[in-house]
Amino acid sequence: MLIIGEKINGTRKAVQTAIIDKNVEFIQALALAQVEAGADIIDLNAGTSPDREPDDLVWLVKTVQEVTDRQLCLDSPNPRALAVAMKAVNEVPMINSISGEPDRLSGVLPVAADNNCPLIALAMDAKGIPKGVDDRLAIIRRLFDEIHESGLKDDRIYVDPLIMAVATNTQCGHIALDTMKAVRKEFPQAHLTGGMSNISFGLPLRSFINRAFITLAVYVGLDCAIIDPTDNDLLTTIMAAEVVTGQDNFCIEFANAFRANKIGPKKNKT
Amino acid sequence: MLIIGEKINGTRKAVQTAIIDKNVEFIQALALAQVEAGADIIDLNAGTSPDREPDDLVWLVKTVQEVTDRQLCLDSPNPRALAVAMKAVNEVPMINSISGEPDRLSGVLPVAADNNCPLIALAMDAKGIPKGVDDRLAIIRRLFDEIHESGLKDDRIYVDPLIMAVATNTQCGHIALDTMKAVRKEFPQAHLTGGMSNISFGLPLRSFINRAFITLAVYVGLDCAIIDPTDNDLLTTIMAAEVVTGQDNFCIEFANAFRANKIGPKKNKT
Repeated sequence: MLIIGEKINGTRKAVQTAIIDKNVEFIQALALAQVEAGADIIDLNAGTSPDREPDDLVWLVKTVQEVTDRQLCLDSPNPRALAVAMKAVNEVPMINSISGEPDRLSGVLPVAADNNCPLIALAMDAKGIPKGVDDRLAIIRRLFDEIHESGLKDDRIYVDPLIMAVATNTQCGHIALDTMKAVRKEFPQAHLTGGMSNISFGLPLRSFINRAFITLAVYVGLDCAIIDPTDNDLLTTIMAAEVVTGQDNFCIEFANAFRANKIGPKKNKT
Repeated sequence: MLIIGEKINGTRKAVQTAIIDKNVEFIQALALAQVEAGADIIDLNAGTSPDREPDDLVWLVKTVQEVTDRQLCLDSPNPRALAVAMKAVNEVPMINSISGEPDRLSGVLPVAADNNCPLIALAMDAKGIPKGVDDRLAIIRRLFDEIHESGLKDDRIYVDPLIMAVATNTQCGHIALDTMKAVRKEFPQAHLTGGMSNISFGLPLRSFINRAFITLAVYVGLDCAIIDPTDNDLLTTIMAAEVVTGQDNFCIEFANAFRANKIGPKKNKT
């Protein structure tokens, strides 16, 4: 499982404040906590207004690169921010994300293709997130047509089925899982990703709902999770799901992570 | 989800001692703790030698019936113990279990059929537990042939695919899940059950492995779980799995259980 650490996100109040105040220590501590917890990739979302986003994203890139050489994920729909950040990165970053929204697709896809970036593709378009599996698949197929035309290979693509709140539609879990199964079948070289925590929006005991859902996502083929890697119970759950779905030969990864004290029933450290 | 409380089991040392000492308080406290935690059915396994098992099982039935009217599950392969316990029960009990072992089948099935008991059927025979899905299904089909002949209806049958330790065979999870999916398809009126905790035998952090596996079992159709219902995290996980698999309309059961303080991240109470 490729783990994308989601914590450096300017839509979170404390992170936004740190970006505006240019609080290097705060951002670097968030990066290091995620690296320490096992993040493979650090997501960077400046989350500021379009006019200042390019500068803020470049500042995030430079600030985080000072303390870790983990791959970065440039999280922005803004081609201008992506273009300048691309010049600041030490190595090829992931890009989060394209969708079927025409401006986003035409603005972001060329940046990803020109740099051969791993790219997250969202199952939505200008009309929003379709309710059903078939409409999501129709968007995903159109995205792959464009991706193929751009020259990017399927194995660079991380499809996010877009998980909605089960409190608003009891079938939301199945819709996301069925979409994932269909993508796995139709585009076997592509990857499956997603932020999982939307599933539990509006419910109590959200961590239990999130863990149940991510376990099912691992079962149907999730191979890249956008999570808070410092959530020890969630990380342990992902590794346990890999064990019970036969993806951890001889349970070696699980046993090693346990011995290294990387997993187990601890509370969030940050 | 039908919850069978597994704690009154004479193969556990403390329970065995209580049975031998005729410790009414201990057994009744175990029964009440499980009822309080939400058990629908109380499993009774005397676990003593065949000569004293009939008396011990009857004593368990009488002892537990004094404090609860929950349905009982007579857990024994011994037709003589089942026959006398059947006379002591206040209402039709579940029986745990038949298998393809000839003596067990010919001894236990008639007791279940004569009393129209819900009956657990294990996917094993005299040669043991088959490694693969096909061989397990072959046994299950033979069991259903016998069950149909006995007059018991499919909706009285609870198939246990027999979950083995994933530490000894990485594919054990898939084997159990695929068996469950096949049973669900071939015998849609029958139920799926099982003790889940074998999956994690020999591994650290067993509770995480168990919770991941039971979540997948709920996804493929588990509708009866043999568990320690006082394990609050496990019970919460089951209800969370029902939410994300669309089995809890409007998430009402989950929300109500939360409000009633029946679920949540507490530690085991007993």
